[in-house]
Amino acid sequence: MVFGVNPANWRTYLVTQESLSGESTTAEVVEAAIDGGVDVVQLREKDTDTRRRYELGRELRELTAAADVPLLVNDRVDIAQAIDADGVHLGQSDLPVDVARELLGSEAIIGCSTGTIEEATEAEAAGADYLGVGAIYGTDSKTDVPEEKDGTGLEIVSEIADAVSIPVVGIGGVTAANAAPVREAGASGVAVISEITGAEEPAAATRELGAAVSAEVGNDE
Amino acid sequence: MVFGVNPANWRTYLVTQESLSGESTTAEVVEAAIDGGVDVVQLREKDTDTRRRYELGRELRELTAAADVPLLVNDRVDIAQAIDADGVHLGQSDLPVDVARELLGSEAIIGCSTGTIEEATEAEAAGADYLGVGAIYGTDSKTDVPEEKDGTGLEIVSEIADAVSIPVVGIGGVTAANAAPVREAGASGVAVISEITGAEEPAAATRELGAAVSAEVGNDE
Repeated sequence: MVFGVNPANWRTYLVTQESLSGESTTAEVVEAAIDGGVDVVQLREKDTDTRRRYELGRELRELTAAADVPLLVNDRVDIAQAIDADGVHLGQSDLPVDVARELLGSEAIIGCSTGTIEEATEAEAAGADYLGVGAIYGTDSKTDVPEEKDGTGLEIVSEIADAVSIPVVGIGGVTAANAAPVREAGASGVAVISEITGAEEPAAATRELGAAVSAEVGNDE
Repeated sequence: MVFGVNPANWRTYLVTQESLSGESTTAEVVEAAIDGGVDVVQLREKDTDTRRRYELGRELRELTAAADVPLLVNDRVDIAQAIDADGVHLGQSDLPVDVARELLGSEAIIGCSTGTIEEATEAEAAGADYLGVGAIYGTDSKTDVPEEKDGTGLEIVSEIADAVSIPVVGIGGVTAANAAPVREAGASGVAVISEITGAEEPAAATRELGAAVSAEVGNDE
């Protein structure tokens, strides 16, 4: 585990998806994202079998630990434990937050995807350390996330950020070009798959995203 | 967990699969199988999301614990921990046996699917408590198991049972009618999905299977 992880400080959050990385491996994308200053990495790879996720997780743990970048695992508490990840990210169809907390202990970081104020306050009460909220702008990467193309994504970020005291990370179709409004809506950072994974230069893409999301909140430029 | 679990004593082993149970729920099938004297239950339900498997697992844990029947979880060490199951059953694409052992501790039961002598001796060396070997007669229930219709299934059971000192459970197309040869080949028990789950009367089917597999080894009747 990485020392002193604080989700409130995360601006750029990479969610891995090997099927979208073209000729690059996920490890190569993560290495480039680290080079570009990414703040946290989530091993997702939902379509991959357990053994492969475990092996990939060990590889990513080595890369991220060497750079002091926290690593989370999507859904699988056991893989997180097996690779000494910093925690997990749970969807509404995964293990409940309080159950994961009991298995992982108080030091682990537990994030939870929430789409409503009710889900958000429930996740906070259950012990989540941060919330994922989206899809902000709609997305092609995660087929299990409902699309929100009409601006309601930013509204719900704002409503949820007001309703809870833990950090909110916005996800879904976020790019360097549209990241600033997510932060202004109340998110402390943005999570992306395609913007980094599908980029020709993932390190540069991470840097641009970081600059966009780190711009002073309230500054229209 | 159930006290004093010994896989060598398992004759009938039910693997759950709700999609094959017609109008019955998995809990109803498990209840009937317990009534019919089943020796162990494995929560499989690979096509179901984590939350549903967790909730179903809690339900099955209550039923099995009340009857002193051990409960294992396929693949997911974390669900096994969360529902206080007796252990896990791992395939070759799941977490390695030694990794699961480290997470679950020495008391947990860990089974492993193996198809070759090499996989079998490796699983035993890594700390497996029993082996699943198949598919003995071919199967329609588990699409990820290679078919063996030509009698090589019984041969490999025999070879693996000779090569290891932990119990072997035969799986794949086993019925009350063809269970005895599996035992004679060296398996201590048989695992089934359809034979119980798809039966009109799962309790009676379990009883018949139990009688067939418990018949004195070497007795042709």
